[in-house]
Amino acid sequence: MNYVSNRMLNYLEPQMYARFTILANQKGCVNLGQGFPNFPPPQFLREALSQEALTEQLQYTQTAGHPKLLNSASYFLEQRMGLKINIDKEIVVSSGAQSVLCCLMQGLLNPNDEVIVFDPAFDLYRPLIEFSGGKHIGVPIKPKVFNTKEMMQKRFQNGQFIYSDDDNWELDFQLIKKRIEYDKLAEILEKHPNIVVCEDAAYHHITFGNNQPFIYPRCISHPKLKDRSICVISAGKMFSATGLRVGFAIGNENIIKGMKAAQTYHIFCLNPVNQTATARCLDQTADGIYFDSIRQLYEQQATKLLKGLIESRLNLNYWVPSGGYFIVTDISNIEIPNKYFIQNDVKVTRDFAFAHYMINEFGVVCIPCSPYYENKETGQNLVRWAFCKTDETISEAINRLK
Amino acid sequence: MNYVSNRMLNYLEPQMYARFTILANQKGCVNLGQGFPNFPPPQFLREALSQEALTEQLQYTQTAGHPKLLNSASYFLEQRMGLKINIDKEIVVSSGAQSVLCCLMQGLLNPNDEVIVFDPAFDLYRPLIEFSGGKHIGVPIKPKVFNTKEMMQKRFQNGQFIYSDDDNWELDFQLIKKRIEYDKLAEILEKHPNIVVCEDAAYHHITFGNNQPFIYPRCISHPKLKDRSICVISAGKMFSATGLRVGFAIGNENIIKGMKAAQTYHIFCLNPVNQTATARCLDQTADGIYFDSIRQLYEQQATKLLKGLIESRLNLNYWVPSGGYFIVTDISNIEIPNKYFIQNDVKVTRDFAFAHYMINEFGVVCIPCSPYYENKETGQNLVRWAFCKTDETISEAINRLK
Repeated sequence: MNYVSNRMLNYLEPQMYARFTILANQKGCVNLGQGFPNFPPPQFLREALSQEALTEQLQYTQTAGHPKLLNSASYFLEQRMGLKINIDKEIVVSSGAQSVLCCLMQGLLNPNDEVIVFDPAFDLYRPLIEFSGGKHIGVPIKPKVFNTKEMMQKRFQNGQFIYSDDDNWELDFQLIKKRIEYDKLAEILEKHPNIVVCEDAAYHHITFGNNQPFIYPRCISHPKLKDRSICVISAGKMFSATGLRVGFAIGNENIIKGMKAAQTYHIFCLNPVNQTATARCLDQTADGIYFDSIRQLYEQQATKLLKGLIESRLNLNYWVPSGGYFIVTDISNIEIPNKYFIQNDVKVTRDFAFAHYMINEFGVVCIPCSPYYENKETGQNLVRWAFCKTDETISEAINRLK
Repeated sequence: MNYVSNRMLNYLEPQMYARFTILANQKGCVNLGQGFPNFPPPQFLREALSQEALTEQLQYTQTAGHPKLLNSASYFLEQRMGLKINIDKEIVVSSGAQSVLCCLMQGLLNPNDEVIVFDPAFDLYRPLIEFSGGKHIGVPIKPKVFNTKEMMQKRFQNGQFIYSDDDNWELDFQLIKKRIEYDKLAEILEKHPNIVVCEDAAYHHITFGNNQPFIYPRCISHPKLKDRSICVISAGKMFSATGLRVGFAIGNENIIKGMKAAQTYHIFCLNPVNQTATARCLDQTADGIYFDSIRQLYEQQATKLLKGLIESRLNLNYWVPSGGYFIVTDISNIEIPNKYFIQNDVKVTRDFAFAHYMINEFGVVCIPCSPYYENKETGQNLVRWAFCKTDETISEAINRLK
């Protein structure tokens, strides 16, 4: 018997991340694939969890989130972003940012509602949207320049890459400054009061160059966008613990209302120990000092890996990342042996062929980017390398690519 | 702007449980409403969580569940139920049993698939079914007898109520023995290979009288039903910690396959600390001794509360519970003052009127049962009293009802 629902039939295989991690282990590769830190989370997180487990009540909590976490999140966001939120109406907690997004789609989408996603986008958005009856519309953002090895070598000065607005990828309406982009977005949306903006801010604490962490230009703080925006925050990403599974969303109460209802029928409520421990971590880091050090760490790792990729045997095109866990490179100059274009008897796109080429001939795992595009052709010359890894992991990857 | 999806419009108000808990607090009532233990969870659970928080990796884990938990669950189920499961194919973990059910509906239901639910049923089943496109079909089970005060007083001997099969409520196909019922179910289903049986076993460790904990006659161990059955288990309920949010399902691999896919797009994965701590608790209790004591505790509390209800001012009809957290009573003899039939300017059913009458004139919270019925009329003479409470709470409730 096939018992599986039609909506799931295309999703029965393990996700790309799991598949590449399995391959990495089988073939002894350096894994720059899935975006999880391979160093320990901060000790204060472990201790907060350990202590809360001994004392916090372990029964049902509010569906919208434990009061302690709502209070701490509110304090943190006011300290770091200058945002004031009403904790009864403008915030909801769930089991990680993905779970929050799941509530968003379920809480807001009616059949055939359209969701415009800027590609490259997290490949889980599509099923989350479609399972709630929505239509996924991918609109690609495009790089302004393709930085070659030579261009990048000139930009490496005093131990780091010079940041440039040219590394920003542009939204479809051609505009240069991020600030202006958001104003433009606000202007377009003024004619469409029913459109909600969702800002997935999983990496809002990791910004490089001129982008200020937490307060870089963003929708949730934009005067004309904030009342129609929802901002999704991952405590797991903030505390380098992707297994923490605590995320929350802040935004307009009319959006949060629907999300809270959805949350009731999604996970009902979240483990209170994980919530109160997260609350303690937020309290402890609300002065921003911890995140300064984390940001420096990630910037160091990004610089190190980018330099390694530039000095490698691979003739790529590059962009200096302005934050997050990943470097994206263009692989259009790479000659990939024909055999890698067939995987399990199926023809694959260039990015997948490249990823398998890397695994087999270099012993390094990267992630193909075509799954992040509605139009797979657009993304098939891009791959992603995670730098949220230890010095040893990154050095070993660089050695193997030399 | 109304941003909320149509599917959520009927679910924006707080759930009945939350509303009655708020009323209980406002009016200083004894709360026998929501089914959470108001005593602490076992210390070994707290210690397991606390210790695992210090050592367990805190990154993404397998979507289907942490290997340690899968192994421990498998060992536990073999010890206590004689079940052998393939941990790669026949089990999936999620954020509490509700979350597991959510994956079940999302993983199996196509639009307009019918789900037959035996009423009274957990009121969250309906939205979980409908949000996945299914149709909820409530089929009531019916009591064979209405035990009056006098009948019950005769059944109280040597400090406990004599158990009787007459307290079992019957499935629509008139049959007396549970064992026969399942055989009958199997016989009916033989003609319908596409029907899956879901057994929500949240209380499988709390059985009274002749029902053996874990191995009472059930679908997942029935020779003709097991291959088409899914069994949902709540670790939170097993360890008196409804906030633990660890549940799992076991069953046929073709069902689990769809649930795993759904889980990937639901919460992705569960906090590993909660999982490995649960694994330790399962290992520690696989000999069944802990559950013997828990079962005795709950049986004591059930007896105490039932006796109190029989000796109260209220002229109810009764059934001796055969397990779980709740006593259900019939309120058809009760004269409820007219004013309680209007709540917030809306006419309510008898069970809701009774619950408000109890809150205002007795200071005790119980839960109306009409929400557990597709046909509200059928359930409007039933209310539910939670006995998963401390001695003090139950004594105080009994005093107030005297």
